[in-house]
Amino acid sequence: MSLTQHAHPLVIVGSMGLDNVQTPLGEVVNALGGAANYSAVAASFFSRVALVGVIGDDFPQEHLDYLRSIEVDLTGVEHVKGGKTFHWSGYYDFDLNVAHTLDTQLNVFADFQPKLPESYKQAPYVFLANIDPVLQLDVLNQIEAPKLTVCDTMNYWISSKRDELVEVLKRVDIAVLNDAEARQLTGLMSTVKAAKAIQALGPSAVIIKKGEHGALLFSGDDHFSAPSFPLEDIADPTGAGDSFAGGFIGYIAAQDDLSHNTLRRAVVYGSVMASFNVEDFSMNRMRRLDPAEIASRYSQFRDIAYFEALEDLAL
Amino acid sequence: MSLTQHAHPLVIVGSMGLDNVQTPLGEVVNALGGAANYSAVAASFFSRVALVGVIGDDFPQEHLDYLRSIEVDLTGVEHVKGGKTFHWSGYYDFDLNVAHTLDTQLNVFADFQPKLPESYKQAPYVFLANIDPVLQLDVLNQIEAPKLTVCDTMNYWISSKRDELVEVLKRVDIAVLNDAEARQLTGLMSTVKAAKAIQALGPSAVIIKKGEHGALLFSGDDHFSAPSFPLEDIADPTGAGDSFAGGFIGYIAAQDDLSHNTLRRAVVYGSVMASFNVEDFSMNRMRRLDPAEIASRYSQFRDIAYFEALEDLAL
Repeated sequence: MSLTQHAHPLVIVGSMGLDNVQTPLGEVVNALGGAANYSAVAASFFSRVALVGVIGDDFPQEHLDYLRSIEVDLTGVEHVKGGKTFHWSGYYDFDLNVAHTLDTQLNVFADFQPKLPESYKQAPYVFLANIDPVLQLDVLNQIEAPKLTVCDTMNYWISSKRDELVEVLKRVDIAVLNDAEARQLTGLMSTVKAAKAIQALGPSAVIIKKGEHGALLFSGDDHFSAPSFPLEDIADPTGAGDSFAGGFIGYIAAQDDLSHNTLRRAVVYGSVMASFNVEDFSMNRMRRLDPAEIASRYSQFRDIAYFEALEDLAL
Repeated sequence: MSLTQHAHPLVIVGSMGLDNVQTPLGEVVNALGGAANYSAVAASFFSRVALVGVIGDDFPQEHLDYLRSIEVDLTGVEHVKGGKTFHWSGYYDFDLNVAHTLDTQLNVFADFQPKLPESYKQAPYVFLANIDPVLQLDVLNQIEAPKLTVCDTMNYWISSKRDELVEVLKRVDIAVLNDAEARQLTGLMSTVKAAKAIQALGPSAVIIKKGEHGALLFSGDDHFSAPSFPLEDIADPTGAGDSFAGGFIGYIAAQDDLSHNTLRRAVVYGSVMASFNVEDFSMNRMRRLDPAEIASRYSQFRDIAYFEALEDLAL
């Protein structure tokens, strides 16, 4: 079945939330947040997305309208009547690499059991955003014959549900982590050794997100390093990793190809989406992003990483 | 005057030392060390080098013989009779990014006054390795008409001789620092802002060395990011920055060209030399390095950073 015939090329499961965020450049209250939302919005620039998540009564209608306007399928989003949506409050100091959590209210997310609509079950591409690995396994069990499964995670699950996370890693094709998580999971200081140790757990490819230092792809024996975009001002780093993952998997779903070259380009598109996302709070920058800007920044990434081959010099 | 006619295309000034180094992978005692030696050995693969430094009676003849064997001119190396050579003792834990100093003995280095031989004074390329900025200025005053001057520094000079260092920066073309030094010098957390602030002090180009995260070049408005080489085991990080700088300036001197593309390639050659240097203690890896290995690793760097342009995809 070709992707254009497929109703739901990309299923994304994870948190849909409302965030209070404060950074040196400003703050937002009850802003659209959550890993699944960030990655769905980023992926939507490349592929149609079918979302799986849960919200309460307080999730603003305008956010649902926005997600529908970018053709995100919300059939798999459960609305718990009388419940409250997942809520995160945090702040960043001048070191924007470190998020300080003030408050996390799981609310309806505490009892979430993802149930995939029938229409989602044959999706070829699946992204398991940061969420309890038990729920990630639930979703994997409901997907029938995926071409590619990708998972993210976080420090909390690495320490509290390590066995379940290792089980997820046995079953997914690609793991996306940041460098601190890769070290925590493996106990290895070397990013290279950590990535290879995670590959040995199951995923054929591992992506290490390094924030301002770019991203590394280890895919089989192939190794790729993507630069970061030289932003002078970062308004809000929240969701950078999620928008990276969304751009990455969205691009692959759109290409419907798993070659090394496609994975490398996907890492760059992920980096492009993350670089835009941090330019404003919540998903505000992605909301006003033009596809032509994505192509332009992709070319800028290429210019940043370019140097001549020895063969070019010999000519 | 062409470089091939020039007796001394590249002058390097800095410390010539003997090191005791311990890392998780082993240790060396009284090994060849010092910023000038590391950068001279790295540069020697590309260009003839004329060294300026000072040694005592204890500097082994075999090291002098080695430096001469790779065509490093030692006319500018002062031998203080009855003196002892600069000596550094340190160790690294599993976090190889952090050097722990056990002992620094300046010895003959304490009263060092660099005096350039007449034959050095018309050198077109000058590298001021990490050394007291007052001495860096002394050397700049003795060089008659350089095409390109490059300086390195360290945290100690940034805090103790800031004004003198700023004076050096006003007068050099390229500053090479690591990310921590760039932040310390400017008080700016953002590497991008820090690099631009240093450019504003004088150098037309700034290179930020980021160890395992590669290196950034800011040259005028041109920006380049070089990846790091995915080494699993690092024997000894000592001299990585110096061998980077040596490869960088050595390549430029050999090319005798200051275009953006040459600077980008030079950053890669610097990264190549640093990646080899950390594979063994002291300069042991560079001592047995074959030029064909340098070309091969340059190509590997290019493969690591490669992704297709949008134009390629449209074909």
